[in-house]
Amino acid sequence: MKYCSSCGAQVELGIPEGDTLQRYICRACGVIHYQNPKIVVGCIPEWEDKILLCRRAIEPRLGLWTVPSGFMENAETLVQGAERETMEEANASVRIGPLFAIYNLPHINQVHVLFRAQLLDLGFSPGIESLEVRLFTEPEIPWETLAFRVIREPLKRYFVERREGVLRFHMGTIGALGT
Amino acid sequence: MKYCSSCGAQVELGIPEGDTLQRYICRACGVIHYQNPKIVVGCIPEWEDKILLCRRAIEPRLGLWTVPSGFMENAETLVQGAERETMEEANASVRIGPLFAIYNLPHINQVHVLFRAQLLDLGFSPGIESLEVRLFTEPEIPWETLAFRVIREPLKRYFVERREGVLRFHMGTIGALGT
Repeated sequence: MKYCSSCGAQVELGIPEGDTLQRYICRACGVIHYQNPKIVVGCIPEWEDKILLCRRAIEPRLGLWTVPSGFMENAETLVQGAERETMEEANASVRIGPLFAIYNLPHINQVHVLFRAQLLDLGFSPGIESLEVRLFTEPEIPWETLAFRVIREPLKRYFVERREGVLRFHMGTIGALGT
Repeated sequence: MKYCSSCGAQVELGIPEGDTLQRYICRACGVIHYQNPKIVVGCIPEWEDKILLCRRAIEPRLGLWTVPSGFMENAETLVQGAERETMEEANASVRIGPLFAIYNLPHINQVHVLFRAQLLDLGFSPGIESLEVRLFTEPEIPWETLAFRVIREPLKRYFVERREGVLRFHMGTIGALGT
């Protein structure tokens, strides 16, 4: 951030009075520009003993596999966001189920929220951001070509817990690589 | 948003190619300025059969009571955010416990995340954003002067479930007043 989005003047970094953190401050119009974490919301679409994954047609991680998920939009709920992303990426209709996982990614200022979901029919196909969309049984999961650690960790847990017959919500934190 | 925070040129509203929603777009430098929901994180600090509430020293809802909570900051986790807000507003040390509730507030682009927490000692006092901080038993809760619906709803449920002996995570949506 270099310029004030309210008045167009140059902003500077400083700690506002009564605050403890550096913010972008506009000395011309007085606006303080707060920056906060973004929510990424998605789901694990289930069909019998399979789950739906999408192969990414966009960067980052083009060509690798992930669950349907993306940035939550203004004016929607978490459930609506998960449904929308699943439709956009896989043209798939789902009924969102229980919350399965929340992961903090403090190094990139994101919070990932992952639901379980019921795939409603088999009429799915790649959306504009996907190269390929298909169902996987557990032995078929492409663990080596999953796009993100924040997908791999909950999916590992998902299959372990599913074999044990108890899927439980959990919360985790994924730091910068090597931490 | 009137000006591009990257280059200072005027932005305009439009739907970027491949997108479906209006965004602020800078035609000068090409940056698309996405706006996404913010996370408000807090906790219900418990001490024996009491919980800790703060009376707000700032707008909105100056003078009314709420649990310690506030906007999650970049580079922190949800748990760290809840701990920080509790220290800032009540000078209170807590050990954050289970996730208790998530509320969508799509009309103001917020997601509220509320944990249960254990108050670690009685050395609390009003922080700069609080007029007063105190412990309340259930009959003492100031239901008529709670600051927000997004506090009242989970607290109602908290006390019902506590009496039943089972506190369960739940998710809800609070719309605009009258909706």
